[in-house]
Amino acid sequence: MTRSRVSMQDIATRLGVSVKTVSGALHNPSIRMSDETRHRIRALANELGYVPNLVARGMRQGTLPIVGMVAEGVITQPFATEIVRSFDNVLRLGGLRLIVSNLRGRDDVEAEVAELKRLMPQRIVYASMYHRTVTLPASLTDTIALMVNCREASDAVPALVPAERAAGRMVTAHLLSRGRRRIAFLNLPGLVAASLRESGFRDAHGEAGLQPNETWLRPATAELYSDRAPSLVGSHIADWFAGAGERPDAILCGNDRVALETYNALRRAGLDVPGDVAVASFDNQVEIAARLDPPLTTMALPHREMGRLAGEMLSGQRALPATVEEVPFRLVERASV
Amino acid sequence: MTRSRVSMQDIATRLGVSVKTVSGALHNPSIRMSDETRHRIRALANELGYVPNLVARGMRQGTLPIVGMVAEGVITQPFATEIVRSFDNVLRLGGLRLIVSNLRGRDDVEAEVAELKRLMPQRIVYASMYHRTVTLPASLTDTIALMVNCREASDAVPALVPAERAAGRMVTAHLLSRGRRRIAFLNLPGLVAASLRESGFRDAHGEAGLQPNETWLRPATAELYSDRAPSLVGSHIADWFAGAGERPDAILCGNDRVALETYNALRRAGLDVPGDVAVASFDNQVEIAARLDPPLTTMALPHREMGRLAGEMLSGQRALPATVEEVPFRLVERASV
Repeated sequence: MTRSRVSMQDIATRLGVSVKTVSGALHNPSIRMSDETRHRIRALANELGYVPNLVARGMRQGTLPIVGMVAEGVITQPFATEIVRSFDNVLRLGGLRLIVSNLRGRDDVEAEVAELKRLMPQRIVYASMYHRTVTLPASLTDTIALMVNCREASDAVPALVPAERAAGRMVTAHLLSRGRRRIAFLNLPGLVAASLRESGFRDAHGEAGLQPNETWLRPATAELYSDRAPSLVGSHIADWFAGAGERPDAILCGNDRVALETYNALRRAGLDVPGDVAVASFDNQVEIAARLDPPLTTMALPHREMGRLAGEMLSGQRALPATVEEVPFRLVERASV
Repeated sequence: MTRSRVSMQDIATRLGVSVKTVSGALHNPSIRMSDETRHRIRALANELGYVPNLVARGMRQGTLPIVGMVAEGVITQPFATEIVRSFDNVLRLGGLRLIVSNLRGRDDVEAEVAELKRLMPQRIVYASMYHRTVTLPASLTDTIALMVNCREASDAVPALVPAERAAGRMVTAHLLSRGRRRIAFLNLPGLVAASLRESGFRDAHGEAGLQPNETWLRPATAELYSDRAPSLVGSHIADWFAGAGERPDAILCGNDRVALETYNALRRAGLDVPGDVAVASFDNQVEIAARLDPPLTTMALPHREMGRLAGEMLSGQRALPATVEEVPFRLVERASV
């Protein structure tokens, strides 16, 4: 890579003007000078291939036009990258570049942040790849400008999180509005999202004057479903539909992958979706939910939206939330309900 | 963010040594000094919270410890992010940080690269989110150190690409080895990968002394399958199995999403996988291929491997390829064949 750079001093010398004038012509439209001077300077800068040295400017100003992101958690959810992409897209419009520091399980957050700070970023955000409560060291609660897809345990840092409870309520109300009355919930295990969604599931039942059947409301136990272990989705569903007793007429799934397995299990039991059993879910996983047979009704996670909001906040177009801002899901209606 | 930094000068003044000695003690183990001096300097640096200012060092050395990546193409393949993540992981082990510049369709590559260069990266790589041939402006063929998941049209830049033809050959040979003789191929439309995989499909047939049935070898036409349009996978399969004539006993799919639709269509036709028809595919898409019913045999794309190799090359642990290096897929055998 070429290291010989044309400097503002080079341009100033050639044209017999001050460096300050060159700087004004190139970087500060509000500094007054004749149009002709401004034009001559810009034309020469262009001809010589002048590239503003952000690093030199950063040394003077104390920061580079960089936003650092400490990103936590293995990306098991492919759409979690939507957070990073939409964040980055918005930052770039504001002239900022994103550096992502992918935290691994045993990494020390303080050390990671210290590493990022060596590059003199303007701000640092903390993002989680699934909805979590994070306990930050006290030393970092002032350093981290925003939490994305997670909240700080003491709520000491502004945060954007998915509106899980509202999503659980909305999708359950949707199933109820279609006449389903015996709704099972194959919830995800051990997640912040799971207990909030269960609250929403109960809210919707309460508002309809109904009680959920606790037998079909699997608590968020680690045994049911994991991306890393054999799933028990199939055996749960087989149990529910084996006997002669009451059976669910709808199954709400913790995510679209659970829904995929639910389709498999219902099919093996000779049941039709949605004729016998409606299925709904959370995520709207790229290219999967729409291509299941029948296409899946699901609550779209607001990852892109959180990234966009974070980008607008970090580039100063929008105020940071005072505490925790909940970002709504979107109900994507397809043929499974 | 705190801007007051402890400098090497501060440490030197306090201890009555030169800045050069401080620099040597902190950053250059090969500079000779007594263990006691080195220890005193390090202890004070630690006590004062000295953080090496990479930006200042960058100004002196002409680069920051940054690698820039120009990343092209919308990420429709969730696993394409594996390239970025494994690349980043390896770079970090070498003390380098990654800045990704996501190119959008109409973005000007030269302008993007110029923007990245303002941050004085050590090297710049170009990555595509699907396997492509890219025509770079001549001005950039020296600037870009490596192409990842793509090749430059004139092969002027070292490149890492997936070994598509070998993958097409391997998966077809696998189907043949299991006794399948009437293999259809629902190839992806309009991709570099598609025509290379078709060559591999033909190679494997040729080596077995067989001719593929051209009726079932859908050329890479845009009508068959797109992530953005209604798919024709179902109607193709329905046609093949409707009449009384010869039917495929295996279907090779362009990706795991095509395979998902293939399962749906075969099921609707009352056919069993793999009893009546074996299904195999390309991608090994996270958490989908393994959870289809039956689990899907598929060729795992080498995205993580390409990222790792690129990281090792850019951090100097491994030589850059002379021209184009093909990175092999991995056959993941499951129950669909």
